[in-house]
Amino acid sequence: MEKKHIERLSSIVGKENVYTDKAHLIAYSYDATRTRFEPDAVVFPRDEQDVSSILKYCNENAIVITPRGAGSGFTGGALPTNGGIILGMEKHMNKILEIDMENMVAVVQPGVINMDLQKAAEEVGLFYPPDPASEEYSTLGGNVSENAGGMRAAKYGITKDYVMAMRAVRPNGDIIRAGKRTIKDVAGYNIAGILIASEGTLAVTTEITLKLIPKPKFTKAYMGIFPSVDDAMNAVFKSLASGANPVAMEFMDSLVVQALKEKMGIELPEDAGALLVGDVDGNVIEEVEFQLSVLDKSFKENHAQEFIIADEGPGRDKLWHARRNASPSVTIFGNKKLNEDISVPRSMLPEALKRIYAIGDQYDLKVPCFGHSGDGNIHVNVMLDGDNPDELANGHKAIEEIFELVVEMGGTLSGEHGIGTSKAPYMGIAFNDAELQLFKDIKSAFDPNNILNPGKMGLA
Amino acid sequence: MEKKHIERLSSIVGKENVYTDKAHLIAYSYDATRTRFEPDAVVFPRDEQDVSSILKYCNENAIVITPRGAGSGFTGGALPTNGGIILGMEKHMNKILEIDMENMVAVVQPGVINMDLQKAAEEVGLFYPPDPASEEYSTLGGNVSENAGGMRAAKYGITKDYVMAMRAVRPNGDIIRAGKRTIKDVAGYNIAGILIASEGTLAVTTEITLKLIPKPKFTKAYMGIFPSVDDAMNAVFKSLASGANPVAMEFMDSLVVQALKEKMGIELPEDAGALLVGDVDGNVIEEVEFQLSVLDKSFKENHAQEFIIADEGPGRDKLWHARRNASPSVTIFGNKKLNEDISVPRSMLPEALKRIYAIGDQYDLKVPCFGHSGDGNIHVNVMLDGDNPDELANGHKAIEEIFELVVEMGGTLSGEHGIGTSKAPYMGIAFNDAELQLFKDIKSAFDPNNILNPGKMGLA
Repeated sequence: MEKKHIERLSSIVGKENVYTDKAHLIAYSYDATRTRFEPDAVVFPRDEQDVSSILKYCNENAIVITPRGAGSGFTGGALPTNGGIILGMEKHMNKILEIDMENMVAVVQPGVINMDLQKAAEEVGLFYPPDPASEEYSTLGGNVSENAGGMRAAKYGITKDYVMAMRAVRPNGDIIRAGKRTIKDVAGYNIAGILIASEGTLAVTTEITLKLIPKPKFTKAYMGIFPSVDDAMNAVFKSLASGANPVAMEFMDSLVVQALKEKMGIELPEDAGALLVGDVDGNVIEEVEFQLSVLDKSFKENHAQEFIIADEGPGRDKLWHARRNASPSVTIFGNKKLNEDISVPRSMLPEALKRIYAIGDQYDLKVPCFGHSGDGNIHVNVMLDGDNPDELANGHKAIEEIFELVVEMGGTLSGEHGIGTSKAPYMGIAFNDAELQLFKDIKSAFDPNNILNPGKMGLA
Repeated sequence: MEKKHIERLSSIVGKENVYTDKAHLIAYSYDATRTRFEPDAVVFPRDEQDVSSILKYCNENAIVITPRGAGSGFTGGALPTNGGIILGMEKHMNKILEIDMENMVAVVQPGVINMDLQKAAEEVGLFYPPDPASEEYSTLGGNVSENAGGMRAAKYGITKDYVMAMRAVRPNGDIIRAGKRTIKDVAGYNIAGILIASEGTLAVTTEITLKLIPKPKFTKAYMGIFPSVDDAMNAVFKSLASGANPVAMEFMDSLVVQALKEKMGIELPEDAGALLVGDVDGNVIEEVEFQLSVLDKSFKENHAQEFIIADEGPGRDKLWHARRNASPSVTIFGNKKLNEDISVPRSMLPEALKRIYAIGDQYDLKVPCFGHSGDGNIHVNVMLDGDNPDELANGHKAIEEIFELVVEMGGTLSGEHGIGTSKAPYMGIAFNDAELQLFKDIKSAFDPNNILNPGKMGLA
């Protein structure tokens, strides 16, 4: 990057907020995909006006910008694949600006860590439900950009269900307010609606107004132990269609059960072929008991051998222990994991899982699956020996077949991780030319010079 | 319109689906604003392919299109202000295509009437919550285009919270699928998010996939009688912030109470200065009782003289009778009503109402208010003598001042009616130049030739 650009950016945000040293360039070159692309500079805006000035300058000088929160994304959304500058939102723009208890709303800057908001809300008896697995370190700006999900989506929905309003900056420097601190607002286009899940390609988020809800008073955990994956998958959609509304309903398949026993030493029944674990909650204990009774009945109708209930505290922790160890345990099946987060209509889960395992068998690869079955979103892990080029090639073929299968079944390439760079090659499976053209037209409308996070989401 | 265009349109949809006779042009010239603009022709597409062919032809020949459901909108969204053709979706594209009980999803064509879906869902124990006052005749396509609200939004949200997927046609004829029958889907831009509330200016909706939820087993109604509007408005946000989650919390002010007594002969306590009426529901009766106890306590802390509870059936009907008669009753204050649907953060309701009445006083106009206080959305009715030009002019001045006030308080021009033509003159109060420019850029990206519902939402 030309020296004059660095000087101009330094004059906007101050020298102490622009870095071009190797240590910074390396530190900001990666995300959770473990792929690396070095930016030309790392810039930390102090406030919205800085963001506006930076974008305006970069737009006029064709400098590419990659906005970045914690860099914890699984699909490369925060990777500076085309160089240019990293716009780091986590250093200064990381404040919870307001918890408005009267209207049950939080106003945050994009660099606030998800869990920090959850804690601040709980301190005043309120609740921010979206809980991506990265909640301890991912930022709310990133959560909005990727429309992050989590375990509690079965009952409480995902990030987009909590965004009431946003402030954002267009590539030309224009500062945009979208939405209001009101439940109803139908004046003008739903700009927040299109910015959510846009992976930093349309505008840079500078402030988010999030809905909070009252924290339910009672929670209990449950675990269903099933003889087979098929029984568990049937229990998922049948229990929900029977009126159950669990906070979470997390699935672990036979391979995960095996891995939990072998690698983690977790005690589970010998004949356990699949597990469902989750929470139910309510304002009154009778609601919790109602939920548990619906689950108990439905699980047993679908051949559950056991239905275990636990109170909050050590009992609940013990039930959840298995789920928390699912991801690290599956490495017994290979040193490399191709981790995808497909989502299908819940009634398709039994058939989808059967066919996913068949694809694995065809390539002689183990495909342990676990995840958020209560909302149809399953983490499919194609395990292989990363040092074996043939296995790696087969793994990628298997992933492509899995995506084709999922789309054929009415599902999506990604339930919560986004497209970024890693799923970009598969966009043609999910979308036709007309749909891809519409994406490009929207991108051009917001960002005609293509300076914001170019090359992501299968866009040019 | 040139004869060749009529012939071409007839060849697409069949002669029996194209009308240019005076009776049809008049029948399709109005909506609930009671303003009239005659189209050049009325065309009834039979299916999505018809919509695509019509749009493509009109786009190539600069023929303006106004999509229309029931024409029950309050802001002119379905008025053919620029002539051209009315695309009537209610004649053929009015089928409930599927109620998928396993995934709790309905798939509908845009011309389905809201209440017909509510009934179809309830027949199988499911629930479609959005309930605009027009539910008996408005169509789901129109509901999506205006992002319709209703009474149950306090607990259950609005139309956008139920749209999982859509099919739509761009002005160039491209058929677009947006979203999936899954709770989580973050692949590609959130196209459904921007189509919702776009008032038929971006694309024509041809199919909607809507989320259904289990129907709660128990419902009770409540009424709080307050000495003053201020007490009732305080009770609204304080009860909600205390953990109450009522299905609805509807407000009627002192003038409405007076009108209900005088015009409708409804018996209400002599000292009633304001009412709150609504429902609470739950899967277990204890949840219903919990909700009622929170409301009871909070209402009485805010000086409620009475808190009345009623079971479903005649008791509940009696409590709701007042609210159902609010709108027709207020005509005792004038033969013309300027009816706006402002929305503010709920904690601002007490101050907002005080200042709205002060604006009315300043112009010597009565401004009875009622509506969905549980979500901050109030119907503000400036009443006047429509035959008195001075009063009419003053009424419009009062409306403008009310909008300025509402926006200053962090509220919106419209909670559920949309902008259309009637609120277009006020867009400059709510949005700055950068925001209005973004709306125009989005409009151009979807509809570069400006053939879809031009002149609405303050766009060119």
